Amino acid sequence: MHTSAHDTIRAIEWRDDTLYLLDQRILPHSKQRLSYTDPVKVAEAIKDMVVRGAPAIGITAAYGVVLAAMRRYDEAREEWRGRIEKDFAHLAASRPTAVNLFWALERMGRVMRELGPGNPAKALLTEAQAIHAEDIAANQRMGELGAALIEGGKAVLTHCNTGSLATGGYGTALGVIRSAFAAGKVPSVYADETRPWLQGARLTAWELVQDKIPVTLLADGAGAQLMKQGRVSWLIVGSDRIAANGDVANKIGTYHAAIAAKYHGVKVMVVAPTSTVDMSLSGGELIPIEQRAPEEVFGLGANRVAAEGAEAWNPAFDVTPAELIDAIVTEKGVVLNPTTEKMAAMMAG
Amino acid sequence: MHTSAHDTIRAIEWRDDTLYLLDQRILPHSKQRLSYTDPVKVAEAIKDMVVRGAPAIGITAAYGVVLAAMRRYDEAREEWRGRIEKDFAHLAASRPTAVNLFWALERMGRVMRELGPGNPAKALLTEAQAIHAEDIAANQRMGELGAALIEGGKAVLTHCNTGSLATGGYGTALGVIRSAFAAGKVPSVYADETRPWLQGARLTAWELVQDKIPVTLLADGAGAQLMKQGRVSWLIVGSDRIAANGDVANKIGTYHAAIAAKYHGVKVMVVAPTSTVDMSLSGGELIPIEQRAPEEVFGLGANRVAAEGAEAWNPAFDVTPAELIDAIVTEKGVVLNPTTEKMAAMMAG
Repeated sequence: MHTSAHDTIRAIEWRDDTLYLLDQRILPHSKQRLSYTDPVKVAEAIKDMVVRGAPAIGITAAYGVVLAAMRRYDEAREEWRGRIEKDFAHLAASRPTAVNLFWALERMGRVMRELGPGNPAKALLTEAQAIHAEDIAANQRMGELGAALIEGGKAVLTHCNTGSLATGGYGTALGVIRSAFAAGKVPSVYADETRPWLQGARLTAWELVQDKIPVTLLADGAGAQLMKQGRVSWLIVGSDRIAANGDVANKIGTYHAAIAAKYHGVKVMVVAPTSTVDMSLSGGELIPIEQRAPEEVFGLGANRVAAEGAEAWNPAFDVTPAELIDAIVTEKGVVLNPTTEKMAAMMAG
Repeated sequence: MHTSAHDTIRAIEWRDDTLYLLDQRILPHSKQRLSYTDPVKVAEAIKDMVVRGAPAIGITAAYGVVLAAMRRYDEAREEWRGRIEKDFAHLAASRPTAVNLFWALERMGRVMRELGPGNPAKALLTEAQAIHAEDIAANQRMGELGAALIEGGKAVLTHCNTGSLATGGYGTALGVIRSAFAAGKVPSVYADETRPWLQGARLTAWELVQDKIPVTLLADGAGAQLMKQGRVSWLIVGSDRIAANGDVANKIGTYHAAIAAKYHGVKVMVVAPTSTVDMSLSGGELIPIEQRAPEEVFGLGANRVAAEGAEAWNPAFDVTPAELIDAIVTEKGVVLNPTTEKMAAMMAG
């Protein structure tokens, strides 16, 4: 039987009261699994991008709450509810843009508040595992819905990594691509390398090679020329937060690519579970955009290449306005040419 | 006295019958000057990007012809004209897109054909040095003309390297930026890092830091977000070949950036000497675009980061249509909203 990447790549695993994360900073050349029992370390792992990708961050934070409850209950059986607040704050402060993080913490908090006396670990683990399993199911559903939108025949372009590594498994945008490839609708994939962190070159290419889906990397700036040559029919991306009007925050470079897509008549699909939708923000201008360290731009990992004395501007995300987006695909359905009204209807449906 | 980069950086030098090139593959961390007396090695140096930048390639090729004439004349005083043809062919085959290369070879060939009997070296060296000196003068003139277009107050964005390293000295787009900074019109510069070769991070940042012009690097994909925030008034770039209708071939990513500029109302300026204008091509679709090795995209120099098994698409240039360009600045004058008619008038003027 053919084993594909989404069957075998486990970015996040829970085993024997321990959270295991595949260290995405050093993939694909080193495959190292780090173990966590301390929720403070889990928050640091999210901040340092041991794990990244909005859905994966949410799932990781949920398991972080389980570790926190175990630890605080062990420390002080009567006071664990007071002590765990700091862990929630640490986890919430790890990264600001992906709303899945806050969504998962809220969901865990709700279960926690409803708990009776006694050890909270089991109920919270059940909830974290439900969040994890629901994300995989959502990805599979989005894979079907998104693939159905693709006419087929041409390659597609993707940005950043939205696969098994970025989610509970299977992927958002990469899930759609997997489904479309399996259906014979997409013969191959172009992947932006996605500077500065190179999620495309390191992670997306790695996942697709394992799935035997032909993948061709390109510099982020080459996307417009690719579109001009008619090589791709869709730009398919994930999201870190979608505002109520359909504006989409995603990895820096997405907005740049979406403008080029509009200019060339290439369609733009955003694939994200409803846990990524933030109905409390009316528009994308309200989404907090994380600024990361200039060192990410100065080189490649520890290997510095930029001239000394230069500054760097390093926003981790940009915002693509709804007007540039042809379809938002969630597990609840597809929103074409998103507006506030259509987004509300989808979320209610 | 303040010494600026354009006074001190010499990418190309002729001394004692030898051509010296500053090795741009390893700048800014290693400053190594390579010496050349063999024209075949000069062609290889252009191909391998020891020297790059359209005007600098043209000047280098001209000196390559001088070396060829010296060598072939030494070898066979009666047959050097027959033997030098192969050197012209080598130099012409080094890189396909920058038309300055062919322009310089043609100019050297014309002088050669008009020579009487005897050693051709002195006359050819005089011509090569004239090409070099004229390029510096053209850059200074373009600096004035381009800076005059800038209203002032805001930063500008540039792509790739177009400074002293890419030209005979001073620079094309970077020459305009130098002049505008000196005139107090531009407070600082944003520079795309310019993947895959990182001319922006390595070379442009290095030149600007030496000139004490504040420079901030950004990932190529971040340009649209930068423009959305209103941080820049102009995108200022060089060119490798301009067609008769004003379409502009330039470093991959330029077209992508120009589309984003149009979307945001940021103006686009292309700065290039008339040696970059190819009036024999009616439009940009006829410009040959060099494809370079996938390894450039797979990593950073020798440091591989991409997943094994992926392909890469690595066009070195893209073509920006005239409709996206607000001004083409040459040493003969400025063409606003370029058309075939306006370009012809400027070239004739």
